[in-house]
Amino acid sequence: MSTTLRLGIAGLGTVGSGVIKIVQQNAALLTARSGCTIEVAAVSARSRGKDRGVDLSAYDWEDDPTKLAQRDDVDVYVELMGGEDGPAKASVEAALAAGKHVVTANKALLAHHGHALATAAEENNLNLRFEAAVAGGIPVIKALTEGLAGNNITRIMGVMNGTCNYILTRMENAGLPYDEVFEEANQLGFLEADPNLDVGGIDAAHKLVLLSSIAYGTQVDFPAAELQGIGEISIDDIRAASDMGYRIKLLGLSQMTENGLEQTMQPCLVPYNSPLGQLEGGTNMIVIEGDSVGQIVLRGAGAGEGPTASAVMGDVMDIARGITLPVFGTPAAQLVDTPAARSQAPSAYYIRTSLRDAPGVLANIARALGDANVSIDRLRQQNHDGDSAPVLIVTHPCKPSDVEAAIEGIKATGDATSEPIALKIVEV
Amino acid sequence: MSTTLRLGIAGLGTVGSGVIKIVQQNAALLTARSGCTIEVAAVSARSRGKDRGVDLSAYDWEDDPTKLAQRDDVDVYVELMGGEDGPAKASVEAALAAGKHVVTANKALLAHHGHALATAAEENNLNLRFEAAVAGGIPVIKALTEGLAGNNITRIMGVMNGTCNYILTRMENAGLPYDEVFEEANQLGFLEADPNLDVGGIDAAHKLVLLSSIAYGTQVDFPAAELQGIGEISIDDIRAASDMGYRIKLLGLSQMTENGLEQTMQPCLVPYNSPLGQLEGGTNMIVIEGDSVGQIVLRGAGAGEGPTASAVMGDVMDIARGITLPVFGTPAAQLVDTPAARSQAPSAYYIRTSLRDAPGVLANIARALGDANVSIDRLRQQNHDGDSAPVLIVTHPCKPSDVEAAIEGIKATGDATSEPIALKIVEV
Repeated sequence: MSTTLRLGIAGLGTVGSGVIKIVQQNAALLTARSGCTIEVAAVSARSRGKDRGVDLSAYDWEDDPTKLAQRDDVDVYVELMGGEDGPAKASVEAALAAGKHVVTANKALLAHHGHALATAAEENNLNLRFEAAVAGGIPVIKALTEGLAGNNITRIMGVMNGTCNYILTRMENAGLPYDEVFEEANQLGFLEADPNLDVGGIDAAHKLVLLSSIAYGTQVDFPAAELQGIGEISIDDIRAASDMGYRIKLLGLSQMTENGLEQTMQPCLVPYNSPLGQLEGGTNMIVIEGDSVGQIVLRGAGAGEGPTASAVMGDVMDIARGITLPVFGTPAAQLVDTPAARSQAPSAYYIRTSLRDAPGVLANIARALGDANVSIDRLRQQNHDGDSAPVLIVTHPCKPSDVEAAIEGIKATGDATSEPIALKIVEV
Repeated sequence: MSTTLRLGIAGLGTVGSGVIKIVQQNAALLTARSGCTIEVAAVSARSRGKDRGVDLSAYDWEDDPTKLAQRDDVDVYVELMGGEDGPAKASVEAALAAGKHVVTANKALLAHHGHALATAAEENNLNLRFEAAVAGGIPVIKALTEGLAGNNITRIMGVMNGTCNYILTRMENAGLPYDEVFEEANQLGFLEADPNLDVGGIDAAHKLVLLSSIAYGTQVDFPAAELQGIGEISIDDIRAASDMGYRIKLLGLSQMTENGLEQTMQPCLVPYNSPLGQLEGGTNMIVIEGDSVGQIVLRGAGAGEGPTASAVMGDVMDIARGITLPVFGTPAAQLVDTPAARSQAPSAYYIRTSLRDAPGVLANIARALGDANVSIDRLRQQNHDGDSAPVLIVTHPCKPSDVEAAIEGIKATGDATSEPIALKIVEV
């Protein structure tokens, strides 16, 4: 590698523009720290004419990202287009085949094809870096892969989708229903083109499975992650949680057990005064637990031009400094194909249902829970609203399978006027 | 370097023992992640016979750490003895002269001799790593040096001494006076042999100046740091802060200004509901602000066997992976010798004094503040306790020099029955 490191940047949305701003504005700093002059050789995006607030006149233009990735004057291909297949995948594969390091912010690509791409990168002794794919500006990939490399990682938890956290905290702080805040977030441009990527928990689960692979030395396994979105959370749930000292967060949780790897992304109740419970708006937080280090908490902006560009540049700087590491910390050839496991550990649950207005219905519900071995810690039936009354239940610790049986039992009574939901209470 | 990396460990206190436990217990994991077998070749400590709860029988023993550092079968010298001079300094110098990488947890050594040692290391293309010297298990050196390397760092803040944070939160939670909690911390073994290293803020300032050097590309300058310990903080101060929605923390703050580098370690009031305000007990927290990344918060155990050993092993793993970086991120030859600056930025202050019981004394105090251009936001005079009445004042934002003048003015009235103190209020 020369003492100049030349980037080819594909995708000139906010993140791509942000990377170019850093390269232009912090050039002296980057050179002092890396010993390399970092330059942009060429760029690619869908629309050439668009004003992006950065001066692109010094850079060559390529319509085809794959051609950009293969250019002789590109040392590092920076993929910021997104998408799990299509041009992103083709161009990253082409870059690795052409002997170029790759830096990407593409969580979907890596969640689906991470193992194959890591294998391709490592066969050519190349970096495939993705700090920007997880939790925006928080250097969590680096912390987990390098800083905590002496630890047997025991658990990872986190709030990894700022849009969901924005929606949930906004519902709580403004007392607004889900649909209204969802529309507000949409107007503000916070939601992906397919909103289900955000509110369905898919985007956050993409991130979680990448962290799992690094933490446990396992092959990325997105299909095995259990997913539950935030679309069913009502303002009643948020208020009830708050009354009991909890907040509802879309919480990712991954841990290795005797039975295999548990990976869940689902709305949970966490204590109001815990670091996770205190998290407001679009901020992300990752909690990492290791056998030596105990618990480490990392917090920062999970998205946005500056934070995500900062993460991209952290990867670029590592490459400029001559660092090459296995993509997931452990060489891809040694990553284990581990079975997925469902959590059997008991925990308390929050259950919400609505009952029709008739004698004996509450007894039927209580019996359904008892029949499933689910013991009630607290129960509150609210006023009837028309023909229906919300019932909020907190259980004593019980097995997930028993809670599922209890939910089926509640449905079987025929007394529930809405789909009952159950949320895990996580004491962190 | 062979595919075996051999450590020579000097100092077998809790951290040294912790490192050996990781090497023994996580051997397979370390090899999978680094491609290296990590072994201990030899150890050194003051007392050979002592039972440290780890099996040392496979390792050679050296009485002299300098001899250990120079052994042919040592690739990395791990210095865990402590002390800014003496055997620690001599042995680290010897290791670098003999071509050995060095990993150390010694903040005092680096705060005083960091620039010379970094120069020596880099002349020989060696690592001198010190993740364990700052904030225990939190990988903050790595985050700042590498993950955030694309950023112009604008400010660093943090709670970096767990003992001080333990004392302050224990005073608050148990309603106990400083002297009593200090004694309790001493009994629990939380304090350094010279307690002033902790409660005087020296240990925390050692850490702060190391972070400053990385953040701003400046030569480590410990003597320039402004220090104020926690010994003057009373339970009244803590209660008054709490009533106003604040908590008192020994807060490190460093930022580069037009006039030079500001580095302060002093008790400050921070908002109760901020991440820093929520910090309990021995936990550390570092807040890093950069031009791209915005604000990143890192939190974890600041001391203890496991967390500190985790940080040491993170450094060892980097070396095992063949990574060599400048000691402070920017090559030592390019680190700038920057003048120290005192903060002139206005902020609100908390002032506490006590007044003798006589007519007109409160007017005298109020006049002393007005004469110094310090405007009062809130003032509370409490009941007289004997011949003296505590007075608690919160100012509008004012210049530090004006607050100093106000304190001198209060003293000059002759009405203060105790030394007045002023604490900065930091809105974070």
